[in-house]
Amino acid sequence: MVGQLVVSSTQEPSPGTTGGAAGEGDGSGEGDFHGFNDWSEMDAAMLARGQAYPAVTSGQSGANVFLEPEMDGEWKVFTLEAKVVEWEVEPGRLVEGWTYNGMIPAPTIKVSSGDKVRVIVINNLPMSHSLHMHGIRVPNVMDGVDPYTELPATPGETRVYEFTAQGPAVGIYHPHHGADIQIPNGMFGAFLIDDMPVPQKLIDKGYPATPTKTVNMVLNDAGTIGLSLNGKSFPGTEPYTIRVGETMMVHYFNEGLMPHPMHLHQPMGWVIAKDGVPLDEPWPTDTINVAPGERYTVLYMGMEPGVWAWHCHILTHAETPEGLRYMVTAVIVERGTLPEEFIANNPQFAPVED
Amino acid sequence: MVGQLVVSSTQEPSPGTTGGAAGEGDGSGEGDFHGFNDWSEMDAAMLARGQAYPAVTSGQSGANVFLEPEMDGEWKVFTLEAKVVEWEVEPGRLVEGWTYNGMIPAPTIKVSSGDKVRVIVINNLPMSHSLHMHGIRVPNVMDGVDPYTELPATPGETRVYEFTAQGPAVGIYHPHHGADIQIPNGMFGAFLIDDMPVPQKLIDKGYPATPTKTVNMVLNDAGTIGLSLNGKSFPGTEPYTIRVGETMMVHYFNEGLMPHPMHLHQPMGWVIAKDGVPLDEPWPTDTINVAPGERYTVLYMGMEPGVWAWHCHILTHAETPEGLRYMVTAVIVERGTLPEEFIANNPQFAPVED
Amino acid sequence: MVGQLVVSSTQEPSPGTTGGAAGEGDGSGEGDFHGFNDWSEMDAAMLARGQAYPAVTSGQSGANVFLEPEMDGEWKVFTLEAKVVEWEVEPGRLVEGWTYNGMIPAPTIKVSSGDKVRVIVINNLPMSHSLHMHGIRVPNVMDGVDPYTELPATPGETRVYEFTAQGPAVGIYHPHHGADIQIPNGMFGAFLIDDMPVPQKLIDKGYPATPTKTVNMVLNDAGTIGLSLNGKSFPGTEPYTIRVGETMMVHYFNEGLMPHPMHLHQPMGWVIAKDGVPLDEPWPTDTINVAPGERYTVLYMGMEPGVWAWHCHILTHAETPEGLRYMVTAVIVERGTLPEEFIANNPQFAPVED
Ligand SMILES: [Cu+2]
Ligand SMILES: [Cu+2]
Ligand SMILES: [Cu+2]
Ligand SMILES: [Cu+2]
Ligand SMILES: [Cu+2]
Ligand SMILES: [Cu+2]
Ligand SMILES: [Cu+2]
Ligand SMILES: [Cu+2]
Ligand SMILES: [Cu+2]
Repeated sequence: MVGQLVVSSTQEPSPGTTGGAAGEGDGSGEGDFHGFNDWSEMDAAMLARGQAYPAVTSGQSGANVFLEPEMDGEWKVFTLEAKVVEWEVEPGRLVEGWTYNGMIPAPTIKVSSGDKVRVIVINNLPMSHSLHMHGIRVPNVMDGVDPYTELPATPGETRVYEFTAQGPAVGIYHPHHGADIQIPNGMFGAFLIDDMPVPQKLIDKGYPATPTKTVNMVLNDAGTIGLSLNGKSFPGTEPYTIRVGETMMVHYFNEGLMPHPMHLHQPMGWVIAKDGVPLDEPWPTDTINVAPGERYTVLYMGMEPGVWAWHCHILTHAETPEGLRYMVTAVIVERGTLPEEFIANNPQFAPVED
Repeated sequence: MVGQLVVSSTQEPSPGTTGGAAGEGDGSGEGDFHGFNDWSEMDAAMLARGQAYPAVTSGQSGANVFLEPEMDGEWKVFTLEAKVVEWEVEPGRLVEGWTYNGMIPAPTIKVSSGDKVRVIVINNLPMSHSLHMHGIRVPNVMDGVDPYTELPATPGETRVYEFTAQGPAVGIYHPHHGADIQIPNGMFGAFLIDDMPVPQKLIDKGYPATPTKTVNMVLNDAGTIGLSLNGKSFPGTEPYTIRVGETMMVHYFNEGLMPHPMHLHQPMGWVIAKDGVPLDEPWPTDTINVAPGERYTVLYMGMEPGVWAWHCHILTHAETPEGLRYMVTAVIVERGTLPEEFIANNPQFAPVED
Repeated sequence: MVGQLVVSSTQEPSPGTTGGAAGEGDGSGEGDFHGFNDWSEMDAAMLARGQAYPAVTSGQSGANVFLEPEMDGEWKVFTLEAKVVEWEVEPGRLVEGWTYNGMIPAPTIKVSSGDKVRVIVINNLPMSHSLHMHGIRVPNVMDGVDPYTELPATPGETRVYEFTAQGPAVGIYHPHHGADIQIPNGMFGAFLIDDMPVPQKLIDKGYPATPTKTVNMVLNDAGTIGLSLNGKSFPGTEPYTIRVGETMMVHYFNEGLMPHPMHLHQPMGWVIAKDGVPLDEPWPTDTINVAPGERYTVLYMGMEPGVWAWHCHILTHAETPEGLRYMVTAVIVERGTLPEEFIANNPQFAPVED
């Protein structure tokens, strides 16, 4: 949760040193500073928020933590404890988080095609619970759809789900009992089967066949957690780092109640899978609108060094009059070299001259 | 509206028999049962709602009822009476439904390319009315856009629309006068020209060239009807049945005021047409976000027997603290055999071992 | 802002001349005329609104006005003054518009790949300002992301941004300081690099390689401006004119806070670029859902003469009980001839017989 933020700026911080009186431009708008006395107070608040990033908060996001299975013969056994914990969404904002294993998102489960998978859920919630593995192929009796495929596990009860993994898949596990309460409060975790292949069309354009890193990005907007990226609100969100020429594969998941158009500033992206199924024909994006329940897998190439903002483009989900907040983080692109084949095949993405 | 619901579960119903006290897990969350005294009361309410499905309600959805034309020489004549009726959205919830022919959705009109089509609208609404055939190619004077292409038919008046059908098309007919009032209150019906072809790419993957069944699924969220699938709210919604190895083609339409991401649990889907135009390059989906006015045609293959939930993934559109509600139904997949070619071409979708 | 609206109707205006009493159809619904005494008063209000289109309003939309650069050696220099002006959103509705150069949208900037581009921003707002060029490739220090890549220009201050253009690109320039306030209030302008190519697949279908016209369409729904197309609300919106057989390329941009599904009645459309990157595989649409921050480039062919409505399909964004309002305009298709190759390759789009 602790990162080193590289700010590369050629312009000196100089708030309040130039500029005339507010409203000189047109005479209108004076006096409306959203609770501040003037623009310089507003700027100071915004600067303070920006500088607080990335802030340390208690409560570990499991988006990019892999849950280790125990082996029971040929079975990979994953144990989840459903429980309520205190969760720090952003510095100082403590809420009741509903979790698997105390993490929001829950720890990522990753298996391979052919694996025998057993998921044990110990229900220590104050409510009953059913586990649904959204986007993962299971027999109907393992689908966790209370009251049709099972009755829920009551508080204190333990429930077992078993199936053989068939991939590739980009799924998400979450409750299917009281889901309107339990999910927004924090109960969701990535469930991956196999690695998502890079489409041949992108390899032909000079993208490496294997991404440098793969990241899960879970969106939420409701319940006790509210507007958040991987369970945290800016400045408590986590930055991601790649080099120029490296690629980052992002699995987006939306576990909230409304679509969020996630915008990554500079690195160019391609959608390479929808709901866990690889696309023959990837499509380009810098702003990907992810609706509740959808999963998009996007491959980004680091193209230019710097701190590149990454946020929901619903402006009130990224900022308030006090500064950046909620669904905002950054990709830090460090110096490196674009692959020759990439430049040859993507002339419009050649290195920018500073 | 009456169905036989097959619940296949290996786990015995046992609400309230295990489990400790609420909140044992973490000590937080006690006392918050959304109006219930404890989790077991909540479970009982949820179970009762689940067991009420599929509930009989008065008022017949026309989504999958075809309106029979009368022939007048070479003209296929469809007669619509616009009128207000009492509509049972879900058991016991009676509202004022604005309809064509007393159905919500209105009965489906289906014609073939080259057909001479005449639609007669008798306006027995308390308001004026214009008929727009959204997504259907017509001469401008037949477009029903009050006050530009016509003035509306006043209450009691009859209006005639004529054109020659050009397909394929997946359209929807609805008012274009007071549309913000009349449409959410129930006035919308599928208008289809020809059958939508299955793309060659899917036939090559082992999908049959002709779907076993074709279903219209109209979404709404406003007016007197509110959150609903084909004019009904769970448990009044209708289940759909296919066998393993059979395909169901679904035309989704959104006549509400916001996008709805419709999630079908197990059967894998492919988007094969957008706004009624076939796609050369179908794309995969298990959660399809349908915005107001859009139409997506999705082809689903039954892959595993069982009761598979089918619902909007905006959680508050599918569930309340009292249980499942609103935009929820199910696809019941009965036993059958996956086509050999399908298994050969989709190894990840081979039969699951129970 | 002044247009000639051709209304082609074969049906005589005759409000109130036929029709029985309100509610004859079913007996329900009487008395609810949303503030009107009866349907005929409602019709009269709707007709008056329809006839007011296209209305003259003060304040020039810059969506389709190109900002002329001054040359400074090899640099193309664009000067923007950020300032607050009085803005007439629709006839008689005057609001405080936050603008670049007094226009909403701001004037369009268009350059070519390889151009040296300098953008000078004079901040005459009552707040500080940073300029972000969304979707335009720039070095990180030119990205305008306060407080990471720069501190904002305070009121009265001037700031300079420089880069070399790499295209094609369909971007939008807007503030990145107090963006939640400044953008909805009107600060956004199209930023284009090069022309967007027509995909070979569409040329093969008979579409001309060069569009007859290219149009920017910027959506908004918040701030002082509210629900609007290119800064105006119906009937203050601008109509667009093409002939049968001509094509109109539309760059859609959403600078509001929610997705808007834009529906163009008759001309058939193809999405040919997403976020400024050309698609090898265009996809068909008559209703395109544009989320905040996204850009879709859609190519439309005029197919049938007439006045074709073009509006958001969220019904309350297009109409009120008083008639059409907000996100509504029209494409006027004048007489002309479809290309032979188009008809040959798109039999379903052959001329309609009136
Ligand atoms: Cu889900
Ligand atoms: Cu958002
Ligand atoms: Cu940004
Ligand atoms: Cu429509
Ligand atoms: Cu919904
Ligand atoms: Cu579900
Ligand atoms: Cu932006
Ligand atoms: Cu809208
Ligand atoms: Cu319309």
